Amino acid sequence: MPSYKAPVTDQMFVLHDVLKIAEQDVPGYDELDRETTEAILDEAAKVAQDVLAPLNSIGDTEGCVLENGVVRTPTGFKAAFDQMREGGWTALDCDPEYGGQGLPYVLATAVGEQFSAANMAFNMYPGLTHGAYSAIHTHGSDAQKETYLPKMVTCEWTGTMNLTEPHCGTDLGLMRTKAVPQDDGSYKVTGQKIFISAGDHDMSDNVIHLVLAKIPGGPDGIKGVSLFIVPKFIVNDDGSVGERNAVSVGKIEEKMGIHGNSTCVMNYDEATGYLLGQEHKGMRAMFTMMNEARIGVGLQGYAQADVAFQNALEYAKDRLQGRDVTGVKNPEGPADPLIVHPDIRRNLMDQKSFVEGARAFAFWGASLIDRAHKLEDDAADGLISLMTPVIKGFLTDKGFEMATNAQQVYGGHGYIEEWGMSQFARDARIAMIYEGANGVQALDLVGRKLGQDGGKHVMAFFEMVKTFIAENKGQDADFDAQFIEPLKNASKDLQAAGMYFMQNGMKNPNNALSGSYDFMHLFGHVCLGLMWSKMALAAKARLEAGGGDDDFYQTKIATGRYYMARQLPMTATHLSRIQSGAEPVMALEAANF
Amino acid sequence: MPSYKAPVTDQMFVLHDVLKIAEQDVPGYDELDRETTEAILDEAAKVAQDVLAPLNSIGDTEGCVLENGVVRTPTGFKAAFDQMREGGWTALDCDPEYGGQGLPYVLATAVGEQFSAANMAFNMYPGLTHGAYSAIHTHGSDAQKETYLPKMVTCEWTGTMNLTEPHCGTDLGLMRTKAVPQDDGSYKVTGQKIFISAGDHDMSDNVIHLVLAKIPGGPDGIKGVSLFIVPKFIVNDDGSVGERNAVSVGKIEEKMGIHGNSTCVMNYDEATGYLLGQEHKGMRAMFTMMNEARIGVGLQGYAQADVAFQNALEYAKDRLQGRDVTGVKNPEGPADPLIVHPDIRRNLMDQKSFVEGARAFAFWGASLIDRAHKLEDDAADGLISLMTPVIKGFLTDKGFEMATNAQQVYGGHGYIEEWGMSQFARDARIAMIYEGANGVQALDLVGRKLGQDGGKHVMAFFEMVKTFIAENKGQDADFDAQFIEPLKNASKDLQAAGMYFMQNGMKNPNNALSGSYDFMHLFGHVCLGLMWSKMALAAKARLEAGGGDDDFYQTKIATGRYYMARQLPMTATHLSRIQSGAEPVMALEAANF
Repeated sequence: MPSYKAPVTDQMFVLHDVLKIAEQDVPGYDELDRETTEAILDEAAKVAQDVLAPLNSIGDTEGCVLENGVVRTPTGFKAAFDQMREGGWTALDCDPEYGGQGLPYVLATAVGEQFSAANMAFNMYPGLTHGAYSAIHTHGSDAQKETYLPKMVTCEWTGTMNLTEPHCGTDLGLMRTKAVPQDDGSYKVTGQKIFISAGDHDMSDNVIHLVLAKIPGGPDGIKGVSLFIVPKFIVNDDGSVGERNAVSVGKIEEKMGIHGNSTCVMNYDEATGYLLGQEHKGMRAMFTMMNEARIGVGLQGYAQADVAFQNALEYAKDRLQGRDVTGVKNPEGPADPLIVHPDIRRNLMDQKSFVEGARAFAFWGASLIDRAHKLEDDAADGLISLMTPVIKGFLTDKGFEMATNAQQVYGGHGYIEEWGMSQFARDARIAMIYEGANGVQALDLVGRKLGQDGGKHVMAFFEMVKTFIAENKGQDADFDAQFIEPLKNASKDLQAAGMYFMQNGMKNPNNALSGSYDFMHLFGHVCLGLMWSKMALAAKARLEAGGGDDDFYQTKIATGRYYMARQLPMTATHLSRIQSGAEPVMALEAANF
Repeated sequence: MPSYKAPVTDQMFVLHDVLKIAEQDVPGYDELDRETTEAILDEAAKVAQDVLAPLNSIGDTEGCVLENGVVRTPTGFKAAFDQMREGGWTALDCDPEYGGQGLPYVLATAVGEQFSAANMAFNMYPGLTHGAYSAIHTHGSDAQKETYLPKMVTCEWTGTMNLTEPHCGTDLGLMRTKAVPQDDGSYKVTGQKIFISAGDHDMSDNVIHLVLAKIPGGPDGIKGVSLFIVPKFIVNDDGSVGERNAVSVGKIEEKMGIHGNSTCVMNYDEATGYLLGQEHKGMRAMFTMMNEARIGVGLQGYAQADVAFQNALEYAKDRLQGRDVTGVKNPEGPADPLIVHPDIRRNLMDQKSFVEGARAFAFWGASLIDRAHKLEDDAADGLISLMTPVIKGFLTDKGFEMATNAQQVYGGHGYIEEWGMSQFARDARIAMIYEGANGVQALDLVGRKLGQDGGKHVMAFFEMVKTFIAENKGQDADFDAQFIEPLKNASKDLQAAGMYFMQNGMKNPNNALSGSYDFMHLFGHVCLGLMWSKMALAAKARLEAGGGDDDFYQTKIATGRYYMARQLPMTATHLSRIQSGAEPVMALEAANF
């Protein structure tokens, strides 16, 4: 039976020693002194460890069941959701005007990581609700906000996002669901949506579906798409839950993983809907949800890697198998623990250095979102917009890879469901697909984000790395060799890749797009290299200051050194691939594959 | 519903144009002219496509069920197994003295690839039987061979291999199962074995278990392990199936995949067993099975990638989503097919170039086994012994990666079980684990095979690559730039890695072992680079000769070019990692992870 321990110490290190949130000028950050932050993270840890984690494999085994049109969630989910609600965990960073606690997003991210690691399928119910909350909060009328937000902040009502149809996922312009205007200002929504996470369940009094649909007579394609609020139960004027709307569950999908989440086919049959935001501007409103959701999915990626890593580490310490070739380590036992073997360590270090680097990257991203929202900081907004596809794509690809590597430590036991390692890999797999498959993230990065606002955001990123290097080099020969040099090389590779796109993408955009996936990973490595350099500096500072947990800081530096030496060299391969251009990729006629 | 088409054309190309088997001096190869080979492969294709493939998802969904001590296989498995037997497919390369057809192993490998791609879980039943057949054939007494082999050749009786126990997998020296000698020369075998593939089922009249156990009083550890034949039903003197032996199924494991194969816990309770080979030499006998099994597992890796690729390719051609950025390709349709998009192509080309390269590599390996066995060619034997861990480790790691990439082409549909792509990934996953987890393969490669016989086999490999380059460079500037140069660079990286191990492994073996996994992959890339260079040459020759399928040969060259440009650059990263040595890998105390 796998277990989970929330990484509060490491989260505290990232928030306070690396990002130094308490010293930042972001409104709300001043409340997050070390004591407050730690108290919140410790309380969250209790929920994650004691309430959510024990339900993870139950959710996987039982799954969700559709009976007489009603979805039944796995044993214990409803009680856990009640506990989560009562603890106020669903309201953490929501607007106090609607009952939220108004805490910074960066803190909600740290808590979200814990909940997601403990039980990814479960945490999608509040997660999607939060996305729908954000869309209504940003684009809704005052009346809509008052009607829906207070109940969604508490998750008494949960939310969904409805984009995909059987014949269209990425290309939403092909959408067929239609919304016909009614005399009272509402719409009748008709169509079928698929892959609707948390589409229906037995844990809330209402489900608020946000549905993309076309108003007949509007523009063709993606420009004719609008967003609608379609509640499962119509809300009465007094705010109470009224009659059943014409939306029903067609079926629950059988999936590779996240069985605890009900992934539904939703049928809308002249269901009553209310326009959210402007007509035909549905994609803009939906993107409010999607950007947030994408960062949340990046979080899921490394969170699954973390819980898988934690269990693999314990197994590697416990399981006795073979002897250390450099000398017996456990002379009293029949064999040495797995962790003495270099290749097991290589695997564990890959996982550890990824997870901790990813955590810093995600929290940094979340802090940029706080800056962008609370300070209306355009530079932060541009930077996080640029990096959202990297956070989503890179952290979920690597997260799955690392969960798979953790499974490998168990040998045959990793393949047997009862040990739980298969579930981590199976659950992590979806994160590479939903909220825009990772190939679409790469396309977004290279095709849209790189050139956005004249390319100034990527230039700002390069400038930031350059400044960091200039400010920190030449003070410590070890640090220079172990961190500054590899970071500089990796960053050069990234710049060379960008240069290649500029020089060759104009004459043939496929020269850029053929390298988009590699560019996303190359960018991810540079970001993690930067994070590791910052973490190593912060750890050095704490070591020099003394009085802390020296083992923790030394381990941090050693783990960073590993990432720089063993992971960062990937940038050279990514660059080589990118520079080979479109020709080898596009050479074949489709018929000749 | 996924489908499978056996790649007969490509298999023929590898066997006859690349390996030129009909021209080799191996006994039995002279019978394999083009017509005969193609006729056999076409017949095999019918079984793979029409009999095995349709049962693949049924096997996944139904799984195996243990009822009243008896294992029931999925619907249709028994009838399919009968068809396979009747067609003589289980006897292909078996000894004619025992009813086999005596065909070369390289041909059996091609057929095995088809069967494995069509239905991996199913094909393990005859696959394990073949492994047990080989062990008895090599190490059994005449009486044992006469008793068991004829029935195992036809798969009237199937076989298993029993190594793992709950507390020991890789480190078999810890084994507890014991075999007590009896007055009549037999043994009483007692103990529990786990992860026994095809451990029991309802498709054969008997199951012949090969069981590793310790004879009390023998040497400690791995040197005290012997191998025993333990039949499910004792065989009477007249060869008929007699009384039930004291071996029973404890349970069937719930696994991530290969549900159609019954993975059993086997309990031996003073079961009657017969020593196979010599006392305390069980590992040697077991290795006869394991080396063959490891190559078979490598085959499974790329075979699953192939069937996953085939389906992803069809989906990419059919599914309309988005528009080609360089100009609309399907003006009549609402969107262009996925295959127009560069990142989809990148993904498909990764898969295609891997699968075809892997096929050539596996067939080449199989031809070396034929040479080793039929010509007693020590050089071939040394080379295949060196490359067995590469075939197993590299082809299964990449096979799983590619099956996962194929799943990605489907977007959300790839995560839904009904589309079948999840099964390919889940099934492929086990191949990285069983028959020695891939980390153990890397250890075998670097810790044992590299230095075997004074390192002469790896030197022979380098010499072979060098000779190939010398003989083929300077004749065609394109070929030099696209194939010879990248191959030379990759091979240099491999040599540099070997040199690093020699120079640094002596003072600290962990300097070699920390790079073992990367070395295995680096070696794999060089092998595939060599295979692609050979395939490109063969395709060029056919194009120049004229009269063939020019599209096929041009596609072959273009696919090879892709591998050289986009996959081979990985060798540089692997080398960088290897050269960073043991320090970053081993730096942490276990307690500080």
